[in-house]
Amino acid sequence: MTQPAPPTLADVQAAADRLAGVAVRTPLLRAHALETALGAKRIYLKPECLQRTGSFKFRGALNALVQLTDEERARGVLAFSSGNHAQGVAAAAHMLGIGATIVMPEDAPSLKIERTKGWGAEVVQYDRYSQSRDIVASELLNKTGAVLIPPYDYGPVIAGQGTAALEVVQDLKALSDAPKKIDAIMLPCGGGGLSAGSALVFEQAFPKADFYVVEPKAYDDAGRTLAQGSLQEADLSNKSLCDALLTKSLGRLNLAILQRYAKGGLAVSDKQALQAVAYAFSELKLVVEPGGAVALAALLSGQVELRKKSAIIYLSGGNMDIDMLLRASMAL
Amino acid sequence: MTQPAPPTLADVQAAADRLAGVAVRTPLLRAHALETALGAKRIYLKPECLQRTGSFKFRGALNALVQLTDEERARGVLAFSSGNHAQGVAAAAHMLGIGATIVMPEDAPSLKIERTKGWGAEVVQYDRYSQSRDIVASELLNKTGAVLIPPYDYGPVIAGQGTAALEVVQDLKALSDAPKKIDAIMLPCGGGGLSAGSALVFEQAFPKADFYVVEPKAYDDAGRTLAQGSLQEADLSNKSLCDALLTKSLGRLNLAILQRYAKGGLAVSDKQALQAVAYAFSELKLVVEPGGAVALAALLSGQVELRKKSAIIYLSGGNMDIDMLLRASMAL
Repeated sequence: MTQPAPPTLADVQAAADRLAGVAVRTPLLRAHALETALGAKRIYLKPECLQRTGSFKFRGALNALVQLTDEERARGVLAFSSGNHAQGVAAAAHMLGIGATIVMPEDAPSLKIERTKGWGAEVVQYDRYSQSRDIVASELLNKTGAVLIPPYDYGPVIAGQGTAALEVVQDLKALSDAPKKIDAIMLPCGGGGLSAGSALVFEQAFPKADFYVVEPKAYDDAGRTLAQGSLQEADLSNKSLCDALLTKSLGRLNLAILQRYAKGGLAVSDKQALQAVAYAFSELKLVVEPGGAVALAALLSGQVELRKKSAIIYLSGGNMDIDMLLRASMAL
Repeated sequence: MTQPAPPTLADVQAAADRLAGVAVRTPLLRAHALETALGAKRIYLKPECLQRTGSFKFRGALNALVQLTDEERARGVLAFSSGNHAQGVAAAAHMLGIGATIVMPEDAPSLKIERTKGWGAEVVQYDRYSQSRDIVASELLNKTGAVLIPPYDYGPVIAGQGTAALEVVQDLKALSDAPKKIDAIMLPCGGGGLSAGSALVFEQAFPKADFYVVEPKAYDDAGRTLAQGSLQEADLSNKSLCDALLTKSLGRLNLAILQRYAKGGLAVSDKQALQAVAYAFSELKLVVEPGGAVALAALLSGQVELRKKSAIIYLSGGNMDIDMLLRASMAL
C-alpha cells in the first residue's frame, strides 16, 4: 500500500464547503487585555472551545464522515481518542445516522466519556498503560468491520481541521483595523491534525509568520521532531493534565506538512497550562481545558516576544469539569 | 430643570462610531445545541461577557465619558454601581486619564470591587440595607465636584449600550443563512440601560419581534411596570444572587423607550439563573454571571415557546468567581 499524499489547501477549501452551516463558524476575538499586558500590537484568539462538541475535532470528523460511501456508512465507524476526537466522531456520526464505536482510555476525563456516549456511540475502554490501543482497535475493526477514522494522520481529518484557519484569514481580511502583518501563530499540538491543517492555510496567507506548535513538556515530541528533522516519540507512560495532547508522535502526513512551514515547537508545564485555564476563565470569560490552553500558556509565560507584534492564538478545546477549574485556580 | 428627551437610534449610531476599535465587537454566536434542545430554528447569543471589563457596561461608560468637556474631565467622574457599571466607568476613565470615584455596596462581589480598584478608581463602600445610595453619592458629589455618570437613566449610557444591538443586526445581515424573521429577543434587565438602548435598534430592525426584558423574580419591577404602564418599584431589601440587576426601578428615559416596543417582562428564580450559569459553562463554554444569565434562564425554563422560531438572547456579563460557579453546579 502506497503512502497517501498529504492534503492540500484545495482540500481544506473543499472541507469548508462541506462544513458550511453545520460546524460553528467560531469568531476571531481580539484580546485587548492580553495586548496591554504584553505590549503587543494585536492578539487574536480563535476559540475552538465554542465549536460543536467543545473542540475543533468536530470539523475533521465531519469532513471525513461525509465522504464515506453508502457501503462504508452502513459498516459504521470506529475511532480511538481520549475524548475530543471521540466526541467529534460520535456527533458527526449521529448527525449522519452512522453507527460509531469509540475506543477510549480508562483514564479519559469522565465528562468526555459521558458526552461521547451521549451522542449514541458505543464506548469501549482500555487501560492505556498496560494495553496497546492499536491492538484493541484492530481487534474491534476485525470484529465489527467498521471504518477506522484516524484522529490526525488522515487527509480528510487534516483538511477539516484546517477550516478554522480559513475562517481566521477571512475574518482578518474583513477587519478595517487589521495589522499589516501577522508575526506569530501558536496552537496546541498532539498528533498534528489541527497544526497541519492550519499550516496549509497559513503558509499561503502568512508565509513569513513564525508558526509554533505548542505541547505539554512531558509530550514535547513534535518540537523535538521539528528540531531534529526526523520523527521523535513521547514516552506514553508520562502523565499530564493535558489529556487532549497525549500522543506518541506526529502523524507522517502531519509532519510532511509541518516541516515545510513550522518554525518549531514550544512546551509548557502542566502548571503553566492550568494558569492559562484560570486566566481564560477570569479574564477572557472562556472555558478552555488544559490541553486547549497550552498556546495561551506559552504566550502568558513569555516564550514568544510579542512587543509591538501581532499574533494568532488557538484555544482548541473546552471540555473540562469544574474540578479541573478548581485545580487551575489553585495554580495561580 | 426640564427632563431630557430619550436618546434615538441616531445617538446609538454616533456612539458606535465613538466605540469603534476601542470596545470589543463581540461576536454573534449561533447556539446549535440550544436549537436542537428546544426545536428552534435559530438561536443566536450575544455574549457581552466577552466585552472589555466583562460586561456591556463598558460601552455606555465610554460613550458618556468621551463626551465630557475638558473642564468636566478635570473634575473627575463619580458612579454608583454594584460592580459592572463600576468597572465600565473605571476602565473608560483610566483610558481617558480621568479620575474616578465609585460608590459600591459593601455586599458587592469582592471580585468586582477588586477589579474596579484595579483600574485605578477610588472605591467608597456603603451598606445598601441601612444607607441611602443617593445620599452617599450626593455627599461625595458635593465634596469632590465630580461629574455623576448615572448607570442607566442617562442618554449617553443608553445609546452606548445600544451599540451591541447594532452589531447583532449587522452580523445577521452578513449571514448567508439568516432566518427570514426574528421572533423573540430576550435580555437581562436591571435599570433598563441595555434594554432601552437595544430597543432603539431592534424596534427599527425587527418591529414585529417579541422583545422581553428578563429579571430576577425578587426584582421583577420592570415586568410589572410594563404590564401596568406606570413605574413600579422593587423591594430593595430583597436578596438575589443576580447582583448586576438589583435596581429599584426602571429609569424614566428607559421606560419611555421600552413602553413603545417591549412586549413585557419575564422573571426567573435565583436557582434558574444558577442553572443557566452552569449550562453556559458546560455547554456553551462561556463564563456568564447569574445576572447575565437570566435571559438564558428564561429560555431554558421554557418561558417562551421557540419551536421552529428564531431568537436572540443576550448574555450580558461574566464577572463571577469560581465559588459562584460551584454554587451553580450544585443547582443542576
